[in-house]
Amino acid sequence: MFEEGRGLCILWLMFLVEKVAILGAGLLGASIAKALKARGGARRVSVWSRSESTRAKCAKLEGIFDEVCASPQEAVADADIVVICTPTDQIAKLAKEISANLKSGAILTDVGSVKTDICRLSSEALKGSGASFIGSHPMAGSEKIGVDFSDENLFDNRVCFVVLPDGARDCAAQKIIEEFWRSMGMRVKIVSANLHDAIVARVSHLPHLLAGLLCVTSENFSEENLLECAGPGFRDCTRVASGSPAVWDSIVADNREQIVKALKNYSANLDTLIENIESADSEKIAKFLRRAKAYRDQL
Amino acid sequence: MFEEGRGLCILWLMFLVEKVAILGAGLLGASIAKALKARGGARRVSVWSRSESTRAKCAKLEGIFDEVCASPQEAVADADIVVICTPTDQIAKLAKEISANLKSGAILTDVGSVKTDICRLSSEALKGSGASFIGSHPMAGSEKIGVDFSDENLFDNRVCFVVLPDGARDCAAQKIIEEFWRSMGMRVKIVSANLHDAIVARVSHLPHLLAGLLCVTSENFSEENLLECAGPGFRDCTRVASGSPAVWDSIVADNREQIVKALKNYSANLDTLIENIESADSEKIAKFLRRAKAYRDQL
Repeated sequence: MFEEGRGLCILWLMFLVEKVAILGAGLLGASIAKALKARGGARRVSVWSRSESTRAKCAKLEGIFDEVCASPQEAVADADIVVICTPTDQIAKLAKEISANLKSGAILTDVGSVKTDICRLSSEALKGSGASFIGSHPMAGSEKIGVDFSDENLFDNRVCFVVLPDGARDCAAQKIIEEFWRSMGMRVKIVSANLHDAIVARVSHLPHLLAGLLCVTSENFSEENLLECAGPGFRDCTRVASGSPAVWDSIVADNREQIVKALKNYSANLDTLIENIESADSEKIAKFLRRAKAYRDQL
Repeated sequence: MFEEGRGLCILWLMFLVEKVAILGAGLLGASIAKALKARGGARRVSVWSRSESTRAKCAKLEGIFDEVCASPQEAVADADIVVICTPTDQIAKLAKEISANLKSGAILTDVGSVKTDICRLSSEALKGSGASFIGSHPMAGSEKIGVDFSDENLFDNRVCFVVLPDGARDCAAQKIIEEFWRSMGMRVKIVSANLHDAIVARVSHLPHLLAGLLCVTSENFSEENLLECAGPGFRDCTRVASGSPAVWDSIVADNREQIVKALKNYSANLDTLIENIESADSEKIAKFLRRAKAYRDQL
């Protein structure tokens, strides 16, 4: 499934990519710059951040950013690859704002965790600019956010989704972006925007919402404070529910359709389990428990 | 909620309890013996195990077991406290088998993870024997089972449920059993059998089954092997699904009623969430996410 070993080698990437521009210098943006510089994925890296104090921090990082710019238009000038690392609701807007400043043949990509709308809107924003958009989603991050926690090894051995442009397959821009993420140590997975959103709905958004539901169900129990009785199982199962509500508000809004599908699949399985337990169908319950364990043990 | 500091002191316990008998020398049984000897909770400890090789291991443990017996009847002779540490389906049966051999005033307890049926049947089994049954559930354990992994600190600072005998409150036997677990470092929680089963259905059985459902839902997704894309969130949320199916078969059978109740509460919350996401009710979604986070952050 991972299309490894068929990409350009890092030398070819260095030959093709002189300058990378990073828009948004949070944990991901700054870590990309560090990883590129540490592993030779780009010779020059420019950066823009909306925040003046973040720009000041970027300027102080030794040997990472060659240009720290006060406008995105300035940062992207002459860049071969531009990576938008802002919150998801700003990606397509920013693509539009810089489209006139991209050099012909430049490739724009992003790090947004939901892809269908972002890819469609950003591709539209670049129409006529001579640049192309290839959506990306590096599955890396941390509870600790911001440039202060950036790390050149953040992407090592993690999965990065690269989204096939509509109708196109194996275009040069896509191959370069694949190699770009591989140069940081990532395992690249090529998917359609729609399949991407279905996958993350299931491996990331579903666990988060289910953990939240377990918290709420537990809080509803009026006869006892269940937190006083919780052991490691409850603790593990609910950990992700501590994520930032603001981030999750927008993920739920951006990936509504796939999240609802995943929740409904889960709900149907839950209904079946309740039925089997109510009717004391021990054979079906045993089969369910064995199947779940066999699947989890593969991880 | 925890009724600490109102019990007998350990000196009183030592005065009242000369001999403790352990029936079943698995991880819990052997750890209880070690904890008692390390902390002075009993002067003499006898043990019975069905398995000859386990009895041989017990005999080799230095300074832990004063008597290693080939029959449960022999082990419980003269014991002040008897702790049944076998699988749950054998507890009431064993209570019956030893009832004629218990000394008058002896207290029988257990470590079973479900309480309603065990407490009722075991109390019945002791009728007319002059001994009394007080159910216990120390919430301690490990993936590693058997006497080889026993540990005198296994119970330290963990919760132990002590079940109120039907109709009785603050009887002497119950107070002694409370103090018995406290002497091993446990935090005692006094509950009815029914409340106990409702609590563990929610903090332990529900997370296990929900994790299993997440695995099965994930396996059902035919377009991609989702395990290749799973990150730490998915990993944490599904960890408990790796538990022994045989153990969980019997837990589900023993606590059917409370598990179904808990699953139905969860299912109702899930239905509401699906509705709110489908109708894009961002206010209700945000409220749910904030409430879940606030609850989890208390842990």
